Amino acid sequence: MQPSTFREIQDQIQAFVEAREWGQFHSPKNLAAAISVEAGELLAHFRWLSEEESNDVVKHPEVRAEVDAEIADVLILTLELADRMGIDPAEAVRRKLAVNEARYPVDKSRGRNVKYNRL
Amino acid sequence: MQPSTFREIQDQIQAFVEAREWGQFHSPKNLAAAISVEAGELLAHFRWLSEEESNDVVKHPEVRAEVDAEIADVLILTLELADRMGIDPAEAVRRKLAVNEARYPVDKSRGRNVKYNRL
Amino acid sequence: MQPSTFREIQDQIQAFVEAREWGQFHSPKNLAAAISVEAGELLAHFRWLSEEESNDVVKHPEVRAEVDAEIADVLILTLELADRMGIDPAEAVRRKLAVNEARYPVDKSRGRNVKYNRL
Amino acid sequence: MQPSTFREIQDQIQAFVEAREWGQFHSPKNLAAAISVEAGELLAHFRWLSEEESNDVVKHPEVRAEVDAEIADVLILTLELADRMGIDPAEAVRRKLAVNEARYPVDKSRGRNVKYNRL
Repeated sequence: MQPSTFREIQDQIQAFVEAREWGQFHSPKNLAAAISVEAGELLAHFRWLSEEESNDVVKHPEVRAEVDAEIADVLILTLELADRMGIDPAEAVRRKLAVNEARYPVDKSRGRNVKYNRL
Repeated sequence: MQPSTFREIQDQIQAFVEAREWGQFHSPKNLAAAISVEAGELLAHFRWLSEEESNDVVKHPEVRAEVDAEIADVLILTLELADRMGIDPAEAVRRKLAVNEARYPVDKSRGRNVKYNRL
Repeated sequence: MQPSTFREIQDQIQAFVEAREWGQFHSPKNLAAAISVEAGELLAHFRWLSEEESNDVVKHPEVRAEVDAEIADVLILTLELADRMGIDPAEAVRRKLAVNEARYPVDKSRGRNVKYNRL
Repeated sequence: MQPSTFREIQDQIQAFVEAREWGQFHSPKNLAAAISVEAGELLAHFRWLSEEESNDVVKHPEVRAEVDAEIADVLILTLELADRMGIDPAEAVRRKLAVNEARYPVDKSRGRNVKYNRL
């Protein structure tokens, strides 16, 4: 099978939304709120686990399937928001990676949690 | 230019993380927490706007550029989490769309905010 | 009945946690993650509503009761985190209100959504 | 000094909002979105830390002060939302603790992360 492009997936999302005439509810504000809700549902699976336990979630098919669905929800809404605002998601990612590359040069950032760990 | 596939973008994200040896900090738990943080930063741009105002954000290049970067942050972390858990993001989206299609049949869902609006 | 103090409520929360020996799972990191999860569950009730509809939620006993429980979850976890870090929540609120008063002088902020609305 | 009651703190929050005529922007929907945003800012301080490191944040005055301010933001908005919906926050917490006590009996829950840890 050919690897999926962002555009193909976004077209499938759009077809789903249009068939239900749900675009009227999907203002950028509402989509951004819905992304936070789904990100919270994703985090719910991990909040009380240790980091090591979170690494083991992949070995548990039932939990993994639920995480799979939450990852999908975050992606669906974020790709729809991008579409709605005329933002190419692949381009946005590349732009942000370039910003991050300048901000975190390899030689100063390697193996160091520089940004957030000020302890 | 060829349209970008998920795999190409995920490879670029992985190269960024590996060059900095940041994989050690990127447990599924930490990535899920970081996704919630970035989803919050995305929502911050819209929280006090009306829905109509949120539709107009695209016309304001400065705010739009910030939203673009937040969308990228959510995508980068979510695609990295998918990779880390061996989940194909395009497949996950397709699986979830299929679930949603069964859950919200077109004839019962059209133009209705059925799931959440119980008022 | 006497009005409840923060301390009384925090003592009840602490008694609940200690009886179950759950303090071992309640690191500041885990509590902060759990607060985000519960904030998302609270937001879930409003994400697809218009602002006007969100004002009417109080008239719907069933939805109002669910919002009541989500507000409680956010408060329980936030007050526990404060306790765990030796932060007096009432003092923290007063400190932050003083900061906000300096940041948003009444004469420049009245009726204006100054901070976030740059459209 | 007398310990602070919820009502006293809520009155101070209300006075702040009323002086700026910001009630017009504070629909339940917008407040719920803002709570998620602030919960994300709180979580930002912990996302890349280990749980042990998160326990040590209290020893670092600068980070602790920032966490203090984020805790305050979550509380301010949640207490305002409660007020706006006619919900007594102390009563809501007590109601939820009673629900949780029935749901997690001490003898079955002691020392066990029963709800979320299915690994």
